[in-house]
Amino acid sequence: MSIVQKHQVDFKLFDRPDVPVRSFKAGDTVVTEGEPAKEMFVVRNGKVAIKVHGDTVEEVAAGGMFGEMALIDHSPRSATIVAIEDTDLVPINERLFVILVQDTPFFALDVMRVLVERIRLMNQRL
Amino acid sequence: MSIVQKHQVDFKLFDRPDVPVRSFKAGDTVVTEGEPAKEMFVVRNGKVAIKVHGDTVEEVAAGGMFGEMALIDHSPRSATIVAIEDTDLVPINERLFVILVQDTPFFALDVMRVLVERIRLMNQRL
Repeated sequence: MSIVQKHQVDFKLFDRPDVPVRSFKAGDTVVTEGEPAKEMFVVRNGKVAIKVHGDTVEEVAAGGMFGEMALIDHSPRSATIVAIEDTDLVPINERLFVILVQDTPFFALDVMRVLVERIRLMNQRL
Repeated sequence: MSIVQKHQVDFKLFDRPDVPVRSFKAGDTVVTEGEPAKEMFVVRNGKVAIKVHGDTVEEVAAGGMFGEMALIDHSPRSATIVAIEDTDLVPINERLFVILVQDTPFFALDVMRVLVERIRLMNQRL
C-alpha cells in the first residue's frame, strides 16, 4: 500500500483572494509535532512528508491535505511536516474550515475520507 | 491513554421512528473484518470492542459511534466489532448518513472528531 495520500480535494473551493498561498523550499519544516495549531493546509504544488516520532507515515502531494486533525480537536500538532519538494500550500484557518464544513458538505466528506485513508494506512502497520 | 472512545454524539439526532434500535447480547459479533458494509452504528446502551487482527484497539460505550469508515470510503469492514455487554445500537445507513452530514454540520464534526481520536490512539502505538 502506497503511503502517498490518494484522496484529492477540489481546488476551486480554495481559490479565494483572502487565502494567499504560502511557499516552502524542499527541506523546510512546515509544522512541528507538539506545537499549538491554528490552521490546516491543502497542497497546491509540491510534496510534503508527515513524520511521527521521526518516521514518515504519509506523503501528501498536490490536491492532498494535512494538519486538519489539530483544527478538529484543538490539540497540539500530532506530527512534524517537512517539504520534500519546493511546495506551495493553501492555509485554511479555523473560521474558514467551519464555513467550508457548514456550506459545502462534500468538503466535510473530503476531510472524512482523508482521515479514514490515514486510519487504514495505520491499520496496515498494526 | 484510555482506549474507550471519549467523544459523544447527540442522541436527539437519531431519535427517529424510521431508525429502529438493534439489540445484541454480550459476546455477539456485530460486524466482521473484511465484510462489505452498508451502515454505521451509534451505541445507545452497552459497550462494544473494536478488534483489528484480533487485538482490541478501541472500546465504544453509550454515545459513541463505530463502522463509519466503511460508509465514508465504501471499503469492506476494517475491523471486527464484538459486544462486550448487552448492547443496543442505532444503525445509520448511507442515505441517512449523507442527510445528517448535509443538514447537521455538527454531526459531520462529530464524525471527524471520532476519526481524529482514533488516529491519535493509533499514533500512541507507533
